[in-house]
Amino acid sequence: MTIRDELQKLSPVDVRAAIRRGAYQYDTAGLAGGYIQGNLAIMPADYATDFLRFCQRNPKPCPLVGVSDTGDPHLPTLGQDIDIRTDVPKYKVFRNGDYQDLVTDITDIWQDDFVTFVLGCSFSFEEALIEDGIEIRHITKGSTVPMFRSNIQAVPAGPFTGEYVVSMRPMKAKDAIRAIEITSRFPEAHGTPVHLGDPRQIGIQDISTPDFGDPITIESDEIPVFWACGVTPQVAISNAKPSICITHAPGYMLITDIPSANVGRGPDKF
Amino acid sequence: MTIRDELQKLSPVDVRAAIRRGAYQYDTAGLAGGYIQGNLAIMPADYATDFLRFCQRNPKPCPLVGVSDTGDPHLPTLGQDIDIRTDVPKYKVFRNGDYQDLVTDITDIWQDDFVTFVLGCSFSFEEALIEDGIEIRHITKGSTVPMFRSNIQAVPAGPFTGEYVVSMRPMKAKDAIRAIEITSRFPEAHGTPVHLGDPRQIGIQDISTPDFGDPITIESDEIPVFWACGVTPQVAISNAKPSICITHAPGYMLITDIPSANVGRGPDKF
Repeated sequence: MTIRDELQKLSPVDVRAAIRRGAYQYDTAGLAGGYIQGNLAIMPADYATDFLRFCQRNPKPCPLVGVSDTGDPHLPTLGQDIDIRTDVPKYKVFRNGDYQDLVTDITDIWQDDFVTFVLGCSFSFEEALIEDGIEIRHITKGSTVPMFRSNIQAVPAGPFTGEYVVSMRPMKAKDAIRAIEITSRFPEAHGTPVHLGDPRQIGIQDISTPDFGDPITIESDEIPVFWACGVTPQVAISNAKPSICITHAPGYMLITDIPSANVGRGPDKF
Repeated sequence: MTIRDELQKLSPVDVRAAIRRGAYQYDTAGLAGGYIQGNLAIMPADYATDFLRFCQRNPKPCPLVGVSDTGDPHLPTLGQDIDIRTDVPKYKVFRNGDYQDLVTDITDIWQDDFVTFVLGCSFSFEEALIEDGIEIRHITKGSTVPMFRSNIQAVPAGPFTGEYVVSMRPMKAKDAIRAIEITSRFPEAHGTPVHLGDPRQIGIQDISTPDFGDPITIESDEIPVFWACGVTPQVAISNAKPSICITHAPGYMLITDIPSANVGRGPDKF
């Protein structure tokens, strides 16, 4: 039995403990099923208000599920005893907008003015679609979802600007309709699609060549369905060029204690 | 025909124009039906990040629908040509947490460091409940909804702390169930109730004596249904005591260009 198999039986708090002690440094797909996993962005407080505005104005690509107090590495609204310096398997460190380093612990570079942002990710809605019997092609194939730079302009906030990055999942029309119905219940995981059908309407010239992730075939009876994607805030952060910014490595997410279906509940989230 | 009757036929932008030129200084209930009306809080930028955190952590009482840039009196994400200094019929001015003044224009006291927050209000979901045939008793009676200080603690953020204030609407069980179903579609207007039934479970000792608004009778076949209320952020602001803070006067709201049913859509809200 692999460590992934073992971890799949564990609660979010136990999985985070394994990550914290360095026992697990792989991606978090499929771990702690039924709980929200989050995209991560950590930056100095000088940028926090504008980044909060950016998330409020662009809820589909940037569904904000938690914000830390300034300098506090804990996230009590997202889970018990989370220490964001150690509880994510892999972090990317950016300086002045440029990617510099891939690390498994950020304790050494933590700053007293850091603010942590956790954004919802597509794992939650994909789980719900699969449970409903809808095929998610890239998961079936074991590849990464294809992602494209679109021409949908995000609403800017201070230095944070850019276009939406969108993820694409090919579906039959009936599955697309059902997927829209289901994802409408997951506003904290990108919500409903931003587009379906003709890719050129959102500025995508070649659907067979994604900007990020792996290509995937669209069958003749299928249409591409596009969701706003968590790479969007990373593009906006690259454009803003904060002196330092730390994100998760793609696929290596923060596992929270919040059940996936548990949106907008306020203080009694878990 | 009264000016209210005339305004009811107008679009949000026309109603705001009438308010701006001083032609309408009454409450906004029933105006520009089908569009989100918003609670208002304006405060210096020093408090903005913590207030944003407070809203993110307490989405039911504080559903954030818009945030301005610092010093900018416009709200382009909420409507065309909104000028928050003139487009609300009545404002309350607080200094160091104390209520000081009721005014119809805040142009003279506007500061370059002001940030405007607009929060969703219950008008949107009440409209949807009435359209579904559910009686909203205080509207039938022409009184103000009864509101109570509860013992539900809001998640604090910096100086912003306090308990939830809740509004109460008496309903038959079948209407309460339907109301929960309908309000689940309105997360930007307080969403689903926070409690129903026994008021003592949320710290309300005497349901016949509200802390704000007017008392209302609960019939023997009815239960009280409690929603998180927009007075909650006002209590948190009183506790935070910013040097200056401006809110709308209760009932005198900002009318936005965003359709009530149009939640979480991102850049193409209107």
